[in-house]
Amino acid sequence: MIHDTAIVSPLAEIGEGVEIGPYSIVHGNVVLGDRVEVGAYCELGVTTPLGDGSPLVVGDDALIRSHSVFYESSRFAPGLVTGHRVTVRENTQAGAGFQIGTLSEIQGDCTIGDYVRFQSNVFVGKKTTIGNFVWVLPYVVLTNDPTPPSNDLIGCNIKDYASISAASVILPGVTVGTHALVAAHACVSKDVEPHTVVAGVPARAIGDTGTISLRDGTGRPAYPWTDHFTRGYPGHIVDGWKAKEDGEN
Amino acid sequence: MIHDTAIVSPLAEIGEGVEIGPYSIVHGNVVLGDRVEVGAYCELGVTTPLGDGSPLVVGDDALIRSHSVFYESSRFAPGLVTGHRVTVRENTQAGAGFQIGTLSEIQGDCTIGDYVRFQSNVFVGKKTTIGNFVWVLPYVVLTNDPTPPSNDLIGCNIKDYASISAASVILPGVTVGTHALVAAHACVSKDVEPHTVVAGVPARAIGDTGTISLRDGTGRPAYPWTDHFTRGYPGHIVDGWKAKEDGEN
Amino acid sequence: MIHDTAIVSPLAEIGEGVEIGPYSIVHGNVVLGDRVEVGAYCELGVTTPLGDGSPLVVGDDALIRSHSVFYESSRFAPGLVTGHRVTVRENTQAGAGFQIGTLSEIQGDCTIGDYVRFQSNVFVGKKTTIGNFVWVLPYVVLTNDPTPPSNDLIGCNIKDYASISAASVILPGVTVGTHALVAAHACVSKDVEPHTVVAGVPARAIGDTGTISLRDGTGRPAYPWTDHFTRGYPGHIVDGWKAKEDGEN
Repeated sequence: MIHDTAIVSPLAEIGEGVEIGPYSIVHGNVVLGDRVEVGAYCELGVTTPLGDGSPLVVGDDALIRSHSVFYESSRFAPGLVTGHRVTVRENTQAGAGFQIGTLSEIQGDCTIGDYVRFQSNVFVGKKTTIGNFVWVLPYVVLTNDPTPPSNDLIGCNIKDYASISAASVILPGVTVGTHALVAAHACVSKDVEPHTVVAGVPARAIGDTGTISLRDGTGRPAYPWTDHFTRGYPGHIVDGWKAKEDGEN
Repeated sequence: MIHDTAIVSPLAEIGEGVEIGPYSIVHGNVVLGDRVEVGAYCELGVTTPLGDGSPLVVGDDALIRSHSVFYESSRFAPGLVTGHRVTVRENTQAGAGFQIGTLSEIQGDCTIGDYVRFQSNVFVGKKTTIGNFVWVLPYVVLTNDPTPPSNDLIGCNIKDYASISAASVILPGVTVGTHALVAAHACVSKDVEPHTVVAGVPARAIGDTGTISLRDGTGRPAYPWTDHFTRGYPGHIVDGWKAKEDGEN
Repeated sequence: MIHDTAIVSPLAEIGEGVEIGPYSIVHGNVVLGDRVEVGAYCELGVTTPLGDGSPLVVGDDALIRSHSVFYESSRFAPGLVTGHRVTVRENTQAGAGFQIGTLSEIQGDCTIGDYVRFQSNVFVGKKTTIGNFVWVLPYVVLTNDPTPPSNDLIGCNIKDYASISAASVILPGVTVGTHALVAAHACVSKDVEPHTVVAGVPARAIGDTGTISLRDGTGRPAYPWTDHFTRGYPGHIVDGWKAKEDGEN
């Protein structure tokens, strides 16, 4: 259902079962898949000369919460879920099941894999590349300008299954390896090896992720987190993780 | 006065003298006390399966500024004041005179005492406990996941009169003691003793709060701050602080 | 064009060619110059007892993006550009060509020079003074209370051409010198000399800005940045920088 007060361009392509909340605006260069739900006060498909002319495409079964803003020329596979007041600029491509927390901002020209989860107030500079199953916790800043101000934007590269803890900053061009863990409030100026924990300002490697135990009383290892944390991932994904774990044991 | 453009459910319980600004939305599971003032573009009582079914209750004489979002199943004693674009999720209980700065977010399942003041852009993770008369400065992050991602959320515990300076991060499960001071941009990984100052990444104790002087030229001690800072607190509270101070002298 | 759903006070002074987006609110104590463009869901000229009674004045050719809030008693020279969800409180004066990134907040009683650029989510406490051509990167916090909570607000002072990198915190009363560079995620507790780089928590001087090279493969010095970065500045400004550089060589 489209609320009476929503302003939806007749040029926008709207799927079946779409809901658009009060006072939201959908511009013409927008494609919304089936069963997309848009909250109140959202603006979708903001035009920009920085886009490539393609529409904002939101795949099926998305939930975009209130006060969010999406520009044209970005594309989301099915299952997008956002918090409130999210901003996504142009030329961003994201895979399935992407979750973006409240107040987070993606500045555009970014590539993001499948089942990535941003918590609240995450900042993603232009030209960032993020793999699959990455976790980014609140107030993390992914930078891109090595000598501000300059024209040499060099995005960060966050690999599959990496987890970046709250209030950390990743400096321009840094690669965070697969299954790596960045501790809270770290400032990461060098590449992080896979399965490695880094901490501090500047961040230094302090060990292997395999040495960290869960705080649930079992003493089980906390990493790789795919061995114990499966909430919200599709069954076939979790089955793949389990098969891999069984094969390793 | 309720603005013509506001959308207010007939199921909502609205007190006397309530003002609701342009384009704001009040859902059905909401109780607003007397003289509550709600700015423009707010959404109150967002429904969620994570709530306990109880309404959003906003006590008398509250001021909720524009673009704010409150979910159902949270309860605020009288005198709530918010900045703009505040987000409060379900199952949060807060005492009298709570102030929440612009852009701050409370993720829910939190307990907050009386006369707590958050400045701008404060993040409060689920399961946080905050005492009375606590100050939290801009861009502070109160975390809760010791091994992200996990299901073991362990909230922070901030005791009465503690003051947490700008851009600090408190790690999961940490207790900050009464009248303690966390310096700006600290990363607090261990419990902080009462009346103690901690600073750095990771934060270490650097002294007693009693050794810090005000910067007003008088040389008076800055802590306990209740000896010199009383703006906005009710008279009976301030009288209690004065009596205590007199008794100690 | 003023959108049908915008609520514009007849007392507001609106220039020629002004555009006001859907659902925006313009209160009476507001002066908008010619060709000012205001996005959706903005509220301009919020009244406050903390103002001096003067209007919010937005100079010609400004662009204020959606969900932004400006109070009365602040004044902007021509060419203001904001991101989304910007908040500016009362008694702020800013020069020409001021850019304020998405989610940034200026708490009021601030003085800001010409051609200053804030990126996203910058926080500026009361009583801050900022010179001309200053850059402030994402998630920077400019504080003002040396002993929170107190009544002794002492603003930061950021001098011409200084650049403050992402997620840094500047402590109350600190002066950052002309052409200085604050590294990312620094906590600056002492004054920073001109043309000096500081880094760390607490920040220490680590060298002269002249020793840093661009990452563009040329090996040219990155600072002073005015020697290579001119995007978006007016021709007469850039000509002045070039003349100065030629004079020095």
